[in-house]
Amino acid sequence: MSGPPDEFAWIARGLAPLAEGAPEAFGLTDDAAAIPSRPGFDLIVSKDAVVEGVHFLPGDPPELVARKLLRVNLSDLAAKGADPYGYFLAVAWPPAYGWPEREAFAGGLAEDQARFGLRLFGGDTVATPGPLTASLTILGWTPAGRMMRRAGARPGDVILVSGTIGDGYLGLLSAKGLLAGNSYIGADWLADRYRLPQPRLGLGGALRNHAHTAMDVSDGLIADAAKLAAASGVGLEIDLDQMPLSGPAAAWLARAADRTTALVGLATGGDDYEIVCAASPEDAPALLAAAADAGIALAPVGKATGGAGVRVTVGGREVAIARTGYVHT
Amino acid sequence: MSGPPDEFAWIARGLAPLAEGAPEAFGLTDDAAAIPSRPGFDLIVSKDAVVEGVHFLPGDPPELVARKLLRVNLSDLAAKGADPYGYFLAVAWPPAYGWPEREAFAGGLAEDQARFGLRLFGGDTVATPGPLTASLTILGWTPAGRMMRRAGARPGDVILVSGTIGDGYLGLLSAKGLLAGNSYIGADWLADRYRLPQPRLGLGGALRNHAHTAMDVSDGLIADAAKLAAASGVGLEIDLDQMPLSGPAAAWLARAADRTTALVGLATGGDDYEIVCAASPEDAPALLAAAADAGIALAPVGKATGGAGVRVTVGGREVAIARTGYVHT
Repeated sequence: MSGPPDEFAWIARGLAPLAEGAPEAFGLTDDAAAIPSRPGFDLIVSKDAVVEGVHFLPGDPPELVARKLLRVNLSDLAAKGADPYGYFLAVAWPPAYGWPEREAFAGGLAEDQARFGLRLFGGDTVATPGPLTASLTILGWTPAGRMMRRAGARPGDVILVSGTIGDGYLGLLSAKGLLAGNSYIGADWLADRYRLPQPRLGLGGALRNHAHTAMDVSDGLIADAAKLAAASGVGLEIDLDQMPLSGPAAAWLARAADRTTALVGLATGGDDYEIVCAASPEDAPALLAAAADAGIALAPVGKATGGAGVRVTVGGREVAIARTGYVHT
Repeated sequence: MSGPPDEFAWIARGLAPLAEGAPEAFGLTDDAAAIPSRPGFDLIVSKDAVVEGVHFLPGDPPELVARKLLRVNLSDLAAKGADPYGYFLAVAWPPAYGWPEREAFAGGLAEDQARFGLRLFGGDTVATPGPLTASLTILGWTPAGRMMRRAGARPGDVILVSGTIGDGYLGLLSAKGLLAGNSYIGADWLADRYRLPQPRLGLGGALRNHAHTAMDVSDGLIADAAKLAAASGVGLEIDLDQMPLSGPAAAWLARAADRTTALVGLATGGDDYEIVCAASPEDAPALLAAAADAGIALAPVGKATGGAGVRVTVGGREVAIARTGYVHT
């Protein structure tokens, strides 16, 4: 079929298959979805938007854009201790995105919704003279009253992060070709980490049973730790020497002109989509063990105090952070 | 404050007041909202997006853009027989939209969320190099299993519409200055109808108790009737002579060069945000009476048949419709 796709044809051919098996969605032939009551559970809802040239690079493959959009929303569910359920999608398509690009976008969604166990429930598809813009509203479930909050860290708590920090930052540099001069192994792996976050959905039970608070690291570890500190009414001390790093990030750090500046870059770059959480020192071993059972490494990076804000140290010395995280402007 | 607003300052100052009184939203200081289970009810969810220059005119006041966005989503709830509950908002701001424009946008939301009884639960705010783009995910409640569907019209049913049809179409012409040559009273009223739809939320109980099916008229009466016919597996006969018209629309029609062409324009122009519904001839009087009790006029415009598609008549003669409704491209 040539020419820009008609909205209704696109919904029927591209999107309706993503709603198969979801009675909530009425095959995308109605104006709304109907979510039945699930007594004993809370419906957890988050909504994130992405814009071409701001949140992803022009020319990024549409299937990866779709998968990243779904995954950044899934990362919010993971941090809240919620199990994925379904999603609503709104896409504003520029004229240059025809059938092949839209089918690639739908294909990316199909792949990841099968992987993570959720279905499309509805949404909207419109035209735009501007850049590709999409928003996704994700739904998940937690037992009633058990959503993990940002508020809840207590003085004395251990602060932990999942996976590794800084790969998203280096991945963006790599995707932009700014690591090209460095021929070490890992530049492609890092770019993939930037383009395709790994939502830590396996952590839900561990967090709900053993942690006081959790949020996902999207704007940078330091910026998001500051939000967690503010919401909890505590101070946080983060030791960048304890920050878990991937092999490629460690290799990059080893070659950096200034180690402290480089560590701060990794801790403020954003796009990690890892989980930062807090647990009492007594509960931390059980949290680590439960996370390990789910195949996810947690590493302690600091502690909560009776103060306010975030104090960052390298080599035991406090480091002043001029810019705490990435702001998309 | 000068310069483009920082995302976090904007959320705290502009948006958090819209979440006051909603424990679901945690003051917009968390990554997600938590919706408690409401046994006996279904959560009805719809999501619509708007783009500057496509769905509203560049230069339209931000408060009206916000109110229209909320109202087009409320119109979906109204058609589904649902009561408003809350909403999630994602906005992509161009650089030209500073504090005053954003505060006007929030002010429009504040006004209409108070009027229609719902609160902001969360969302996202991002930057865009393109046109102002916003999507809204709206939540409402119906008794379990009672959402009004598009499917459900039966042969012999009466087809009815709320309010008046064609004001959105004429309002867009007026807002673009294309009715300026016509100095009759009503051009400003029509432009207001285009910019500020009136969601027919009072109809919920009447529809749930007396109608077989309902949907809102957003893409034009004929286009949306065709969707209702297809979802229900019936044919529809629509008599444009019975189509309810406002005074300004009737005045415009009286001056039109060709009455049939003008009526088809009103029936295909879109942006009505009225309700089209179907009821058995036996139930129609009770439906009309219940709607009247809610202060909303319903008018019969045709009937459902055993066929397929939509047959349109003027003066008893079938009219061929080349373009059934507005498609935003």
